[in-house]
Amino acid sequence: MDVRFVNPFVSAVRNVFHTMLGVEVKIDKPYIKSDNEALADVSGIIGFSGDATGCLVLSFPRKVAERTASKFAGTEITEAHPDFPDALGELANMIAGNAKKDFEGVHISISLPSVVVGENHRISKSNAFPRLVIPCETPLGRFFLEVAMKIEKEVPVGVR
Amino acid sequence: MDVRFVNPFVSAVRNVFHTMLGVEVKIDKPYIKSDNEALADVSGIIGFSGDATGCLVLSFPRKVAERTASKFAGTEITEAHPDFPDALGELANMIAGNAKKDFEGVHISISLPSVVVGENHRISKSNAFPRLVIPCETPLGRFFLEVAMKIEKEVPVGVR
Repeated sequence: MDVRFVNPFVSAVRNVFHTMLGVEVKIDKPYIKSDNEALADVSGIIGFSGDATGCLVLSFPRKVAERTASKFAGTEITEAHPDFPDALGELANMIAGNAKKDFEGVHISISLPSVVVGENHRISKSNAFPRLVIPCETPLGRFFLEVAMKIEKEVPVGVR
Repeated sequence: MDVRFVNPFVSAVRNVFHTMLGVEVKIDKPYIKSDNEALADVSGIIGFSGDATGCLVLSFPRKVAERTASKFAGTEITEAHPDFPDALGELANMIAGNAKKDFEGVHISISLPSVVVGENHRISKSNAFPRLVIPCETPLGRFFLEVAMKIEKEVPVGVR
């Protein structure tokens, strides 16, 4: 993955958490995903297509997911709440949408979010398509933003 | 979800399993996903974008996933094998690609597959976007194909 693509996602997770939740995100050093990752309890997944290929995965431990969904909705939302998956899917969608704005001149389609709920699951790394893990530290707890992206056409200088 | 969209996916899962695995798939009656579904151990997820919005989820119990991946690769592949997620992701990708051919005149982009591995996880149903469950019976075991799809432009008569 081209490292120039990291910044739009780092900005996007910060912007969305700041604007929608009033929460500041501290970013730890990104690294390439290996098989020995912490497992997630809740993940929102967005696929990219168009000029770009790849995906974005927003992965939370259950407690952090519940606190995040509650903060987002402005009311207590536990895993059993019917709006729980939609809240986290919408957050993933906003982060992808916000990042997309920084890829000027590149047509990126983002898919509907899929939300996985299940203790200790793993969104498998693909051999063919390495994913970058961006650890995010917040007062609500620690979560991970994972991004894999390949752009099929030449990237314009306009990528900020 | 428009019921006319079901047939391309039913044909696609049959075609791909017949051609790539030499396995016949018997389709049970499709139904709208509720919250009380059997949980999956392995799921391949593909997002749609372009003129269509939605996703395809191929969900297996672990044993059935291992037998399917092994049959697909022509060699024993267990969950611990490094090619296990890519094999199931590729199958999901082929089914989406095969179904896409039947939507003539509709530009559907399909995302890179994401593969979830984790005992008893659930790809949450979305309130906003109902998913159709297509139960598939094979000699390798029973698995589920789930499809949510909305087409943003008028569907041409050409959809078979």
